[in-house]
Amino acid sequence: MYSLSEAQALIQNHIDNIKFPEEPPELYDPVKYILSIGGKRIRPALVLLACDMFAGSVDSALHPATAIEIFHNFTLVHDDIMDKSELRRGKETVHIKWDNNIGILSGDVMSILASRFLNNSPGAVLRSVHDIFTTTAVQVCEGQQLDMNFEKRITVTEDEYIRMIELKTAVLIAASLKIGGMLGGASERDANELYHFGKALGIAFQLQDDLLDTYGNPKLFGKKPGMDIVDNKKTMLLIKALEDADEIQKKQLLQWLEAEDFDPEEKVKDVIQIFDSLNIREKIESRINELYETALEHLTKLNRPDDRKTELFAFAAYLMKREQ
Amino acid sequence: MYSLSEAQALIQNHIDNIKFPEEPPELYDPVKYILSIGGKRIRPALVLLACDMFAGSVDSALHPATAIEIFHNFTLVHDDIMDKSELRRGKETVHIKWDNNIGILSGDVMSILASRFLNNSPGAVLRSVHDIFTTTAVQVCEGQQLDMNFEKRITVTEDEYIRMIELKTAVLIAASLKIGGMLGGASERDANELYHFGKALGIAFQLQDDLLDTYGNPKLFGKKPGMDIVDNKKTMLLIKALEDADEIQKKQLLQWLEAEDFDPEEKVKDVIQIFDSLNIREKIESRINELYETALEHLTKLNRPDDRKTELFAFAAYLMKREQ
Repeated sequence: MYSLSEAQALIQNHIDNIKFPEEPPELYDPVKYILSIGGKRIRPALVLLACDMFAGSVDSALHPATAIEIFHNFTLVHDDIMDKSELRRGKETVHIKWDNNIGILSGDVMSILASRFLNNSPGAVLRSVHDIFTTTAVQVCEGQQLDMNFEKRITVTEDEYIRMIELKTAVLIAASLKIGGMLGGASERDANELYHFGKALGIAFQLQDDLLDTYGNPKLFGKKPGMDIVDNKKTMLLIKALEDADEIQKKQLLQWLEAEDFDPEEKVKDVIQIFDSLNIREKIESRINELYETALEHLTKLNRPDDRKTELFAFAAYLMKREQ
Repeated sequence: MYSLSEAQALIQNHIDNIKFPEEPPELYDPVKYILSIGGKRIRPALVLLACDMFAGSVDSALHPATAIEIFHNFTLVHDDIMDKSELRRGKETVHIKWDNNIGILSGDVMSILASRFLNNSPGAVLRSVHDIFTTTAVQVCEGQQLDMNFEKRITVTEDEYIRMIELKTAVLIAASLKIGGMLGGASERDANELYHFGKALGIAFQLQDDLLDTYGNPKLFGKKPGMDIVDNKKTMLLIKALEDADEIQKKQLLQWLEAEDFDPEEKVKDVIQIFDSLNIREKIESRINELYETALEHLTKLNRPDDRKTELFAFAAYLMKREQ
């Protein structure tokens, strides 16, 4: 059995050795660039781990895992254009380093290359793997559209937000596990347990990301805390706070949301104070724990010996404890 | 055997009956819009005709044909963003009717939906069909990149231009025919003859498009003639003229290319005069005829009875005579 870090190293090595065409460089240089500036390779590593769990080998999963990572990076390139983001993994985004057209077209070719890599799946599961992948990829687009829609709205409900992060983030983690399982020969039932394990974990991960931005230890989290608050980002914290706030708290929050000239530190401090008075952190932690438990239940139900599940249990624990 | 117009009607009906999701409307309305504003459905009709030629039925080809048409429309949506085009088929382009982000994301989802429709191909050819499709789709992106590169260059060689239109236009026509043939059960050899038939015809078609813009009968061609000249578009006419021109003619052409304030009618008249003195029209017509002959040779070599080839011969004649 491979460990998570072994699977990450394996897929990293595989990606490093892809021979992309040289011409035209305007098309392929951005592809090589975005794949070279890092990323934890979590999704493709999960394809490998899930496959390994059933097959005791990951050979059939290397190309499909690469497909998932290329697809994920395609979404980053296009999302960065749409969100006008200038930095990704601490480096210039593709559309900043080159331009918007190059970002659009190199993203397009990555989306197709993903499908091309996926087409190396074994014949017995080829159609199902393409089906899960395209269904998931469509959902990721739906999630990005919802995310953009929410930016323009004042209020978003908790359920709407959960559905958005499910589509934008969780289903691709879920599909990575399911596809890995199927490549390893998992039954449909087991493949679906893997999917639901991944989906619950993916939502929990995104909620935890929201929490960490505000409450994370900056030394461990690696980002300046409170940026979501400064940027008025519609995180689960803000959504839940607006939902639970009394009239006075709601007015205070809306004032901060509308403020144009402000001291960022004061805004962060003040908004956190409102969050704290509403026990937002505890409420979201409890939601995360529920999702974590749900994920573990699905993994427990999986029809494999316990020693085959070790790496995925370890992965779930690692995801949930990344702050500490 | 279906005729071209019957195949077009069949695929149109199939596209009209696709049930796209309703939510989020910002994502799917543009997809429905671009598919509803027309287009001749040539590529998917060719999938059907090529399939029909071998199988005597087009049932297995309807979904893959739809895939090709959705993919083609995805490239139009993204190309229009990159080229800043405001009109497509006489209607507002997606990024003008909505905005750039919606154009990017709805294009993305169409590219994935194309792959999804393609995944309904019969098991025996599923992997090959995906392979041809993704190879071709990657080439279409390469062609678009070359086209954008050429816009920024002063000189482009004839060979470079032919390679660009081969990638941007011809290979998708070629792949439509090849995929159709394979769905109908064609041998690899016959499928490749179809491919080369389509590729030669596709290049000829694009060259003819260049000719028609300048020399077409405006009543029949449906566009104001000479627009390519006004816009300094790098067509085969301009490329060949710059190649064949003597020093004086070249200087005249370059003056027109650099002119900022000019009378469009005078520019068109003057440039056509240079083209005419260099016999550009005849030279390109002769190239088109060579390509047309090459296309017909491939169709002739195809291992099918003549009465099975009638529709594709008719299609080739139709494409080559669309001005008259």
